[in-house]
Amino acid sequence: MGERLKRVAILGSTGSVGTQTLDVIRSFPGELRVVALASGRNDKLLQEQILEFRPRYVHSGNGPLPQSDGITQVSDLVQLATCPDADIVVVATVGVAGLRPTIAALRAGRPVALANKEVIVIAGEQVMAASRESGTPILPVDSEPSAVWQCMAGETAAVRRLIITASGGAFRGRTWDSLADVSPEEALKHPTWRMGRKITIDSATLANKAFEVVEAHYLFGIPYEQIEVVIHRQSIVHSMVEFADGCVKAQIGPPDMRFPIQVALFHPDRRANPRLPRWNAVETGSLTFENMEPARYPCFNLILEYAMRGGTWPAAVAGADEAAVDLFLGRAIRFTSIPEVIKTTLAAHSPIESPSVDDAIGAARWARDFAMAFAAGRAPR
Amino acid sequence: MGERLKRVAILGSTGSVGTQTLDVIRSFPGELRVVALASGRNDKLLQEQILEFRPRYVHSGNGPLPQSDGITQVSDLVQLATCPDADIVVVATVGVAGLRPTIAALRAGRPVALANKEVIVIAGEQVMAASRESGTPILPVDSEPSAVWQCMAGETAAVRRLIITASGGAFRGRTWDSLADVSPEEALKHPTWRMGRKITIDSATLANKAFEVVEAHYLFGIPYEQIEVVIHRQSIVHSMVEFADGCVKAQIGPPDMRFPIQVALFHPDRRANPRLPRWNAVETGSLTFENMEPARYPCFNLILEYAMRGGTWPAAVAGADEAAVDLFLGRAIRFTSIPEVIKTTLAAHSPIESPSVDDAIGAARWARDFAMAFAAGRAPR
Repeated sequence: MGERLKRVAILGSTGSVGTQTLDVIRSFPGELRVVALASGRNDKLLQEQILEFRPRYVHSGNGPLPQSDGITQVSDLVQLATCPDADIVVVATVGVAGLRPTIAALRAGRPVALANKEVIVIAGEQVMAASRESGTPILPVDSEPSAVWQCMAGETAAVRRLIITASGGAFRGRTWDSLADVSPEEALKHPTWRMGRKITIDSATLANKAFEVVEAHYLFGIPYEQIEVVIHRQSIVHSMVEFADGCVKAQIGPPDMRFPIQVALFHPDRRANPRLPRWNAVETGSLTFENMEPARYPCFNLILEYAMRGGTWPAAVAGADEAAVDLFLGRAIRFTSIPEVIKTTLAAHSPIESPSVDDAIGAARWARDFAMAFAAGRAPR
Repeated sequence: MGERLKRVAILGSTGSVGTQTLDVIRSFPGELRVVALASGRNDKLLQEQILEFRPRYVHSGNGPLPQSDGITQVSDLVQLATCPDADIVVVATVGVAGLRPTIAALRAGRPVALANKEVIVIAGEQVMAASRESGTPILPVDSEPSAVWQCMAGETAAVRRLIITASGGAFRGRTWDSLADVSPEEALKHPTWRMGRKITIDSATLANKAFEVVEAHYLFGIPYEQIEVVIHRQSIVHSMVEFADGCVKAQIGPPDMRFPIQVALFHPDRRANPRLPRWNAVETGSLTFENMEPARYPCFNLILEYAMRGGTWPAAVAGADEAAVDLFLGRAIRFTSIPEVIKTTLAAHSPIESPSVDDAIGAARWARDFAMAFAAGRAPR
């Protein structure tokens, strides 16, 4: 327990999960050390992080940073994810960027704390195979799969059902038709969680929840028909597992990403962190559960229907959704056009049944490009 | 997994937990077999159970039953609990009767599924020592300790807090002073659980919850100051555990004793039982938590204050409470006199600091007799 330093590589260190991972590391100077940092675009914050955490390896998506003593700049994320000194690799990138580094880290025997669910959605079979074949664990960092994983600890019995909770996002309680004119600013106001922009829009459409179902299906090997979603407005019960005998376990806590991050970093142990909030049952008062009404969230069933087909379909769905969210954030399409963009894109997809990782990445890129071109070919909005 | 029959001995087979244990066994004819049955007074039901389950060993508290082919009558519960053929011993007796058989079974290497919390309250140190020294597990059968135990499965990290839930009993929402004239019939109307008479009255006073705190303290080795009680009216969240990092796990399900019974019988595996209800989050709608107000439940703090002193104090508290409940059920004292009887009895107790099992049993009996005599020496009510 804590005799030795755990060395952490972080891909996506300037994003929401990346900065929160560094905040957790800040709480444990004697136990966690940053060994590698990579970011996409935000060189200013990356430079600050380098000064504070003194990593050995660095990568910026903008190209080489100014030289600095004792710091090696590596040319890509795969090199960073397999750097010789990391005990655990946190993959907190957005979209397809984390996929090859995840597989490379697993093959090199580096446990991956995975915050980027698109990695699993795009290439679930291949990522799980890399984990299985190398005997290297994937440690889920998102709150819902972390909850499922925590509830399954020590259980040998069959799982009867996963109950994944959903806050309902920014527009819960509103009908789909009433959302035609909502702005990106309104959609970015998540009621319970502080997260990145892409995932916050995906929470408003429940696309994020569909991706979590796909992620849970692959990560835990649970058939789709045994995974349910319920609306839970408080975001306190992070998910539940019903076992063969009908007993249910839930994982509960304040909505703060630092909990699942810390769980993954210290697994199988746990550490007290005085900087984290504590949950108080009486202050919460009441935990509610409501049916998720598919009519209110057309993206949910749409994404799941395609993803359940397997092959390159989940990758294409992920690519199409990424484009649709970007288009909405750029005010090129309405909020209510997001499912339309996904649907039109997937109608044009030529699937590959047993794809390689390259095929999966290709499908995601194709779908993203197709969706962008499709949207550009018509009048904005 | 289920290749061989598990042979079950049941002490207290005609009581509430005993009959529900047999109901679970009925669901698994190929996996569970009754090998021994013992009851206290209800020979009629015991005879029916003998006909249905064909045990090898039988004991009745009323003395020998008529002879029957292939059935051996044993003279006491210790002999029954250590009969050669049992793989697991269910101790579902009331009061002190289960204590010696529990220790004997543990010493003989027979796992004990323990429904009778008085066994732990009266002689927690000694029972846990018997379990530790023989390496034989105690499997908690009551819903709250079973929930704690299930939540702790697979966890190596320190527990920061146990959160034990309480329905609040028959008179929740009422002030203590308003209960002077309640009848045994009113007190026996538990809002959520179907249980025996003693435990139902103990639920109305919250004495039962104090005993559960003592039980959890010994069973899980958790200091008293890390055990909290919250009022949870729905009896759906059976208890919760907060770990070192602030993550909380809860065990959830319908209020039905067959769940914890079945968990203990199949541990560490679990089995589907179509006769058990399934929990539905949306039907439950809302789970609420309120502070337990000690002024409403004077027995709670009273019992804990004495029990925390250790030595023979917990045994004396258990004996005094048993007498007080009997006196109330027999209409000899008011409901609101229950804590008064306990307090007066304990004021007369001469404690032993490091008691033997005999000392502990002696203290419980002394307290029971003292309380009875004290009540007899004054006008009824």
